[in-house]
Amino acid sequence: MCMSKGLVVLAYSGGLDTSCILLWLKEQGYDVIAFLVTPRFTVFIEDLRSEFVQEFIWPAVQANAVYEDRYLLGTSIARPCIARRQVQIARQERAQYVSHGATGKGNDQVRFELTCYALYPQVQIIAPWRIPEFYSRFRGRKDLMEYAEKHGIPVPVTPKAPWSMDANLMHISYESGILENPKNHAPSDLYQMTKNPEDSPSEPDVLEIDFAKGVPVRVTHVKEGTSKDTPLELFCYLNEIGGKHGVGRIDIVENRFIGMKSRGIYETPGGTVLLHAHLDIETFTMDREVRKIKQSLGIKFSELIYNGFWYSPECEFVRHCIDKSQENVEGRVQLSVFKGQVYILGRESPKSLYNEELVSMDVQGDYDPCDASGFIKINAVRLREHNRLQGATQKKL
Amino acid sequence: MCMSKGLVVLAYSGGLDTSCILLWLKEQGYDVIAFLVTPRFTVFIEDLRSEFVQEFIWPAVQANAVYEDRYLLGTSIARPCIARRQVQIARQERAQYVSHGATGKGNDQVRFELTCYALYPQVQIIAPWRIPEFYSRFRGRKDLMEYAEKHGIPVPVTPKAPWSMDANLMHISYESGILENPKNHAPSDLYQMTKNPEDSPSEPDVLEIDFAKGVPVRVTHVKEGTSKDTPLELFCYLNEIGGKHGVGRIDIVENRFIGMKSRGIYETPGGTVLLHAHLDIETFTMDREVRKIKQSLGIKFSELIYNGFWYSPECEFVRHCIDKSQENVEGRVQLSVFKGQVYILGRESPKSLYNEELVSMDVQGDYDPCDASGFIKINAVRLREHNRLQGATQKKL
Amino acid sequence: MCMSKGLVVLAYSGGLDTSCILLWLKEQGYDVIAFLVTPRFTVFIEDLRSEFVQEFIWPAVQANAVYEDRYLLGTSIARPCIARRQVQIARQERAQYVSHGATGKGNDQVRFELTCYALYPQVQIIAPWRIPEFYSRFRGRKDLMEYAEKHGIPVPVTPKAPWSMDANLMHISYESGILENPKNHAPSDLYQMTKNPEDSPSEPDVLEIDFAKGVPVRVTHVKEGTSKDTPLELFCYLNEIGGKHGVGRIDIVENRFIGMKSRGIYETPGGTVLLHAHLDIETFTMDREVRKIKQSLGIKFSELIYNGFWYSPECEFVRHCIDKSQENVEGRVQLSVFKGQVYILGRESPKSLYNEELVSMDVQGDYDPCDASGFIKINAVRLREHNRLQGATQKKL
Amino acid sequence: MCMSKGLVVLAYSGGLDTSCILLWLKEQGYDVIAFLVTPRFTVFIEDLRSEFVQEFIWPAVQANAVYEDRYLLGTSIARPCIARRQVQIARQERAQYVSHGATGKGNDQVRFELTCYALYPQVQIIAPWRIPEFYSRFRGRKDLMEYAEKHGIPVPVTPKAPWSMDANLMHISYESGILENPKNHAPSDLYQMTKNPEDSPSEPDVLEIDFAKGVPVRVTHVKEGTSKDTPLELFCYLNEIGGKHGVGRIDIVENRFIGMKSRGIYETPGGTVLLHAHLDIETFTMDREVRKIKQSLGIKFSELIYNGFWYSPECEFVRHCIDKSQENVEGRVQLSVFKGQVYILGRESPKSLYNEELVSMDVQGDYDPCDASGFIKINAVRLREHNRLQGATQKKL
Repeated sequence: MCMSKGLVVLAYSGGLDTSCILLWLKEQGYDVIAFLVTPRFTVFIEDLRSEFVQEFIWPAVQANAVYEDRYLLGTSIARPCIARRQVQIARQERAQYVSHGATGKGNDQVRFELTCYALYPQVQIIAPWRIPEFYSRFRGRKDLMEYAEKHGIPVPVTPKAPWSMDANLMHISYESGILENPKNHAPSDLYQMTKNPEDSPSEPDVLEIDFAKGVPVRVTHVKEGTSKDTPLELFCYLNEIGGKHGVGRIDIVENRFIGMKSRGIYETPGGTVLLHAHLDIETFTMDREVRKIKQSLGIKFSELIYNGFWYSPECEFVRHCIDKSQENVEGRVQLSVFKGQVYILGRESPKSLYNEELVSMDVQGDYDPCDASGFIKINAVRLREHNRLQGATQKKL
Repeated sequence: MCMSKGLVVLAYSGGLDTSCILLWLKEQGYDVIAFLVTPRFTVFIEDLRSEFVQEFIWPAVQANAVYEDRYLLGTSIARPCIARRQVQIARQERAQYVSHGATGKGNDQVRFELTCYALYPQVQIIAPWRIPEFYSRFRGRKDLMEYAEKHGIPVPVTPKAPWSMDANLMHISYESGILENPKNHAPSDLYQMTKNPEDSPSEPDVLEIDFAKGVPVRVTHVKEGTSKDTPLELFCYLNEIGGKHGVGRIDIVENRFIGMKSRGIYETPGGTVLLHAHLDIETFTMDREVRKIKQSLGIKFSELIYNGFWYSPECEFVRHCIDKSQENVEGRVQLSVFKGQVYILGRESPKSLYNEELVSMDVQGDYDPCDASGFIKINAVRLREHNRLQGATQKKL
Repeated sequence: MCMSKGLVVLAYSGGLDTSCILLWLKEQGYDVIAFLVTPRFTVFIEDLRSEFVQEFIWPAVQANAVYEDRYLLGTSIARPCIARRQVQIARQERAQYVSHGATGKGNDQVRFELTCYALYPQVQIIAPWRIPEFYSRFRGRKDLMEYAEKHGIPVPVTPKAPWSMDANLMHISYESGILENPKNHAPSDLYQMTKNPEDSPSEPDVLEIDFAKGVPVRVTHVKEGTSKDTPLELFCYLNEIGGKHGVGRIDIVENRFIGMKSRGIYETPGGTVLLHAHLDIETFTMDREVRKIKQSLGIKFSELIYNGFWYSPECEFVRHCIDKSQENVEGRVQLSVFKGQVYILGRESPKSLYNEELVSMDVQGDYDPCDASGFIKINAVRLREHNRLQGATQKKL
Repeated sequence: MCMSKGLVVLAYSGGLDTSCILLWLKEQGYDVIAFLVTPRFTVFIEDLRSEFVQEFIWPAVQANAVYEDRYLLGTSIARPCIARRQVQIARQERAQYVSHGATGKGNDQVRFELTCYALYPQVQIIAPWRIPEFYSRFRGRKDLMEYAEKHGIPVPVTPKAPWSMDANLMHISYESGILENPKNHAPSDLYQMTKNPEDSPSEPDVLEIDFAKGVPVRVTHVKEGTSKDTPLELFCYLNEIGGKHGVGRIDIVENRFIGMKSRGIYETPGGTVLLHAHLDIETFTMDREVRKIKQSLGIKFSELIYNGFWYSPECEFVRHCIDKSQENVEGRVQLSVFKGQVYILGRESPKSLYNEELVSMDVQGDYDPCDASGFIKINAVRLREHNRLQGATQKKL
């Protein structure tokens, strides 16, 4: 009648890996609470979707968060949302341990654990895929299957796809297996959230998205006249329309925090629509120089999210600054979604810095073209001095 | 028999404005050399296309040059190329003056003139659209038409489109007129380089682009087996394929250097294909941290180009640094072009830092997962200290 | 009986230049209100010292504002303070014009005028030193003297120093005249705020400075036991102590906004003491990564101040962000001031992230040294991959 | 007679710790080569001083390398120099192991090991202070002393200072012990390279330093007429003069790479003189905008050095870029060294962008002051638009 080694809150996906981990932890002498984000069966079933949209996706939209110019961070921003809830449960249940099924080579282990340490510094983390007793016992899927069968864990009957996949409300990522060769094309049956643009409708859908403080507050289907205005509904609707038209597929090689390059295939339909729309309304309403500073903060923010530092002093600081920058990011963008693309069609805003009279080629407005001569001449002072020093005009011409 | 006021080299487009300017300058007492970039008729006819591709577009490709996250700078990088030649002619012909037809509210006046001052500091610039005698005399197109007719200048017979347009090898830009209202949609007959994606082929073209030192050295049509490998041919071919599939259309509001927001519509078919391909091969072959530094240099470079500082000490410095970063950017990208989109399909490189064994989920490679625990723990030191100070875990949860 | 051309608010220093400008403006037909920052005689006498310290110097202290690594911006941050009051008076008195005596080659004209335009966009600015009628009439000091004498304006009886000088509560700057040759040494009798370190006391003064939210709230002379805690008194006291010990003298060449290099000599006694103290308490209390981001914002802020953009959307944004970063910058710094130097002696804070146990070499604390191995190994993954690719170990060794 | 476990190259300082480590490694069954940087006795005695100055200090001078605004990186840049030689010996002697005596909480372990992994990826590192068998056996200085005595290792007879110290050609650092309390003042007898400014000469020494490509090529004592022009002599001479006048002492709290704050006291006499001189000649000769970009590269470089990434792709890239920026950094700076301070007195250069005529207040030069009006007006366009939108002038005034 041995004592429990302690209580573990396990982030449980319902898949083969975490099912085996659940059992294995018990074998090791722990008590285990399974914490399931997507509803299936056991102790803690959580619907974090609304807070995921508002507290995680919306700040990413404000930031135009994109890692290495291409990846919209769908997996990365889900991790702190899940881990936050996990440590809440752990604290509430007085568990000293948390556990997860993330591998030892990936980013997710870092994202989960940094969140846990940041919010629950005394927590102890059990990462079986980094524990030699575990990973040398389960050397592949076959070992896990046998273990599961032997212990009556229900095993997947469908053959596993030759890649791994991770899905949440914002996106699905695919990697590993046959995708590890970066030259291999993604199979056409891989994608689950988005239709193949070759098979998508031959007519666009035209949407209007209204923003306030840099986040979408309403989306309207222009032709159908329908609209959504709660964050969760709105985002799901953009997923639906984006998915229907095959928007948001990328195939990239990216740089992991732990120092290796990996190949990932992602689909982020709603997020991609929002990125285009937000970029547009932001540039329309934000001062040029504020935009420049905010752009660099957005790049920093993206890197922090990717690396797992959502809960860190610097990320809180950057989020605050970005949020501040969004005060006047308000207005409506009209766009069309078609064959994998998002086309901006027009925009309007009560807070735009766009001044139609000032910019017009037909009206002078409050602008004296002669001023431009002085502006250019003064900007040239430095260039002419440089030239003078070089004595090198000839060389350049 | 009055004395000439001096010799002017005019950047002449052959259009109504510069035709009138040519005549007006003569009326004012100048001798004028018309310098025509696109071939039509008069004194200096120049084909700058090859040097435009190699000396201007290629560095922009290396930099992933994009202004304000969206504009590929097609007009901006053409200006220093043209103005450089213009001052070469001016020096050669011992002209003290250069002139152009750019307006007083736009970016192009800055780009032309900064280039002129940088390369020919003693030059004097005549910008008629900033000279009250000129712009108060010619208050609109009608005045120009009458002047032209009166002096036997051939006038356009086709009615002018209700917007202005500027075309070069890399892109076409459209602005002004009905486009000045940022809410108005672009008319579907506006685009000239790209097909409407709704009417574009229903089958993709698959291309392979080979890069060396960050610039494309060969493009191959996979199915047809044809390929191009001189810079000009290669770029024109990408324009053709991109244009056929409607790639590279954007509708944006941007921030001009002179401080106003303007609305522009651009199409950049070949440049857009190259941006996608280069981003892919670059991330595949470049170290993560070098990439980050280079990304910020690329953003700086884009801003410098946009603002007209191609010929400036800082732009030369940045170009040098970016070029240095491209030493190992080498390899082949396979992509498909379809309905306005570019899809990366796969990539390979003799110089990639991608290590299939290292990243594999199935092989351990030269990697000990236990190291990740220490890595995460040390990264968490700071976060846990922050939490300790805050004493605020509860607040956050 | 001619009509007035309008009402001008002139920033009046009481010196020869602005005295002549005052008269000249009247001659030109304007009504003039003289706005005098340092008290002497005429219509608006203003003591802006308290708001200068709190609203301008304090944000600069929070930012560690330094231009080009050396200049503490004493003149630059005074300009928006003065110009803000000037346009307040102009609005209040319904004056359409403001005027100043800044030269046409300097930074101050830009700083004054950008502030005016930002806060009073309809204002019209009269800058006599850029008006040919003025500057061709007054070609030198002699012309001004004659004009002054002729019109009964009191003229300085002391011979003018062979340089120009600008003083405010924060610093004095010296430039022009014999200082224009950058090789010439500054004469030893030039400095007015600081004692020559060769003649300064041979014993240090030891001070304690208490900070809250990144600004000083109390300064205490340790030996004397006296202290100051209102912003103005506190700052004046630091000027006194700093000045007594010859602190804050620099001789630099800097880059003006208008594109030329200039040589300036500055003395900023109190500001220099504060810079050292703030740097110390900030690093003691601020997270490393927040500090990095804040450092780059501080550099940006310094450049904006120097260039005259205190009142701009980007500067307001940056100030807000920097202010946010200072929430926990609290504590006490002890320092000694001696012979031109400031030496930090020690610091303490209730909000420090410094953890004596954690860092101790004698105690393990909550830290497992083994974690460092994993941390280093993972950080090396990327470096080893780079080496592998180079195949170039030999080359390097 | 047991087999050797393998050959270890130990970075041996000759102190108590590494003496014990040497023996302990032998006890553990390794063969050991002691690699001694400062000459004392055993197998490999190395004088790396010349290459340290030219290959490590000079690039730091070019970069104005300073970590967190204050620390001149004297320890940090010594580490890759030593470790590079260590792995050269290891490769040459076919040793699979290297070892060092750095602690498990510090930066030096990271700097040593990242260099080793970068240059010799297959190497295995033995860090005894991170090995439980070692650090639980030697829990303090007393244990080491006993072990040393027992095995006939010569032990220090002088009592150990109540802090630890690390010295090299560039600087000495002091930390730990009584310095761990950040409030404690540094004892006055701590410093070894610099004289207490209170006791330093009461007359300055005036030096001239000549630079070429951003590095010093000659230093001349103006009064004595003596000069040094080889890198090692020149740097040692600056150490001597700086030390004599008490230059380069700082007391700071800094952020370690491993996430904790630590308190360090440093003295860097020659390096501090060079920092001042280089900053001056650089600003004198470098274009403003190049300087800004280079400044941010310098900050990045400093962070990379501090964190141990001297040998990394990004550091190589940044070093290359900074070196490029120094092409025209050439000329002579005159400065005085006195009582802990360095005062710049004047400068001259054949490559300066300083233009005395252009900047002069007495001569117009090739500059039209009217241009400044246009320059300011155009810079104000954006600010006035912002004001217009805010409709908030009143609020601000």
